[in-house]
Amino acid sequence: MDQKISFDIAKTDGRARTGVLKTPKGDIRTPAFMPVGTAATVKAMMPENVRATGADILLGNTYHLMLRPGAERIHNLGGLHRFMNWDRPILTDSGGYQVMSLTDLRKLTEEGVKFKSHIDGAEYNLTPERSMEIQRLLGSDIVMSFDECTPFPATEKQAKDSMDLSMRWAQRSRDAFGDRPGYALFGIQQGSTFKEMRAESADKLMNIGFDGYAVGGLAVGEGQELMFEVLDYAPEQLPKDKPRYLMGVGKPDDIVGAVQRGIDMFDCVLPSRSGRTGQAQTRMGAINLRNARHRDDPRPLDENCTCPTCQNYSRAYLHHVHRAGEIISSMLLTWHNLHYYQELMQGLRDAIAAEQLDAFVANFHAIRAVGDIEPL
Amino acid sequence: MDQKISFDIAKTDGRARTGVLKTPKGDIRTPAFMPVGTAATVKAMMPENVRATGADILLGNTYHLMLRPGAERIHNLGGLHRFMNWDRPILTDSGGYQVMSLTDLRKLTEEGVKFKSHIDGAEYNLTPERSMEIQRLLGSDIVMSFDECTPFPATEKQAKDSMDLSMRWAQRSRDAFGDRPGYALFGIQQGSTFKEMRAESADKLMNIGFDGYAVGGLAVGEGQELMFEVLDYAPEQLPKDKPRYLMGVGKPDDIVGAVQRGIDMFDCVLPSRSGRTGQAQTRMGAINLRNARHRDDPRPLDENCTCPTCQNYSRAYLHHVHRAGEIISSMLLTWHNLHYYQELMQGLRDAIAAEQLDAFVANFHAIRAVGDIEPL
Repeated sequence: MDQKISFDIAKTDGRARTGVLKTPKGDIRTPAFMPVGTAATVKAMMPENVRATGADILLGNTYHLMLRPGAERIHNLGGLHRFMNWDRPILTDSGGYQVMSLTDLRKLTEEGVKFKSHIDGAEYNLTPERSMEIQRLLGSDIVMSFDECTPFPATEKQAKDSMDLSMRWAQRSRDAFGDRPGYALFGIQQGSTFKEMRAESADKLMNIGFDGYAVGGLAVGEGQELMFEVLDYAPEQLPKDKPRYLMGVGKPDDIVGAVQRGIDMFDCVLPSRSGRTGQAQTRMGAINLRNARHRDDPRPLDENCTCPTCQNYSRAYLHHVHRAGEIISSMLLTWHNLHYYQELMQGLRDAIAAEQLDAFVANFHAIRAVGDIEPL
Repeated sequence: MDQKISFDIAKTDGRARTGVLKTPKGDIRTPAFMPVGTAATVKAMMPENVRATGADILLGNTYHLMLRPGAERIHNLGGLHRFMNWDRPILTDSGGYQVMSLTDLRKLTEEGVKFKSHIDGAEYNLTPERSMEIQRLLGSDIVMSFDECTPFPATEKQAKDSMDLSMRWAQRSRDAFGDRPGYALFGIQQGSTFKEMRAESADKLMNIGFDGYAVGGLAVGEGQELMFEVLDYAPEQLPKDKPRYLMGVGKPDDIVGAVQRGIDMFDCVLPSRSGRTGQAQTRMGAINLRNARHRDDPRPLDENCTCPTCQNYSRAYLHHVHRAGEIISSMLLTWHNLHYYQELMQGLRDAIAAEQLDAFVANFHAIRAVGDIEPL
């Protein structure tokens, strides 16, 4: 088994790139979408079916796993891959994002964050060093450095203080991670919506040196327009030859716009979470199966879709099982949504490889503008 | 496609029989266990995986389906098989059992039962004729006649009045069902725990003439000992050359004892329902995954089991996902439980075919007497 992590860009089209991030546990085709497996499961999915949708890598949440069942426990059970029956790459976040969102339950210092578990109130201390240790215990292939996700909006002073803290933590993360062949450590750019501050953050991260770089502090309420403004410069501030990861994004049109701006990796709970609430993500946009218009509709969600849900079930069935609160509703809609997301990523990769991204994106928006099929 | 329903007994061992109930939609190997697909889904399972466990036939609930999404709607959508993506045989109950249990919401007359939906309070009228119509609209392959499941305990007078009513309804069910090649109608024996009354019920049913016969009014709180007492004579009162179905049974040891007493078909929510509450059904008995003893246990539920759950997941993982309320907990435990049930049925069929049923049953009880493996 090749013990090196490497990133090869096969083709570019404008600022967009397509390539392969190679890891000992398998190749990750980029641009890549990573389904979220919060608590050691992509909710309502068997992992082999997540793989069948085209996923090359999953994301796991350090915060959730450290609380339950615990990082040491997972390590003793053979690591997260074995625990959750997924033998391909796993990226874990640092835990910082979730911990920061516990506004009433946490205390932030230079050292790190003290917080209380939302499950049982037990006290924890999360630092760059402990985050690196937890991610190592989990067996994560791509480890994220510990940072503070700067809230939005932030004044320039707030953003600067937060970014500086994150850069000091980035250095401590790098030091604590050490030298681990076959495993990657990604740094996270901060700087809110301030271009010069983003550049400063990028320079500091490059001086430390990482295997990949995330654009952090976006998708936190700033809206698509402002996010795209930042993405018009932020990715270009990061190394061309390393993967760029936009954390927590997003809706299909967010992803398309970010790929056009040079992003290589994405994660988001949207396809799985929205599936559990009866929402399907399709070429035509989002479809709410709860709506009575689907009650007698024998047609699939999308007659062009090759997923098992669209091949075997009507909108009427999906409406029925969602209204009846049946588990299969979450299973079928999550499966379809993850399939759609991976198909979108494949379409983006193919379009970049063929230098046809503009045409692909125009078609993407044209189909969505028409919207869902007419009711019967 | 052969349009006949036929039942061939290949072998007997004592009172136990093994054979095949042939239908145009596929063979049903007996003794057979039918997973319950209440609301057009076996909860937490994809139908192709239910099939993969070895199920030849599913049970659907007339009561639930008539209320939501409605029999006419399912008919207009191509029938229950197409609606729920199951192309093999389906048996539907008559709706009587669930309707009778709505004690405060229903009114019983000679004509049938008037009741209010537990979902929205809407009024319905269920009669033998309407039950036959609903089951035809659903496209059920094996239709159950409409009866009153006599509650337990019942005085002799109560049991007799109830049985007589059920026999008049059986005649009306037969008349309403008509002549439908390729579809079967089963009659249901009543008579509570009274041997002569059971014989009388059996005679009346045989005079009407059915394609199969159910032993009704058991598994209603009488306990295994009393149930087996009834099963010591009730199946023998029914035709030898037709399938005998024990409704709503049961626990693994109930099924084994009933097969020994000449029963060919079973249905029960236990494997799926108990899976959703964290309980696994195994050779060694029931195992509660919620128990902390499994928290660090890297071993599968049953190292001899070939189901995907036992092949790929530890008890520690099952404990974790159950405690975390993850949907995959229901998926994995239901899959295992249905697999175990079907494996038990295959074991029973093989043992009868080899005339080794006594040895099989002795081994079944011996393994259960030892119980679960020791904690680590």
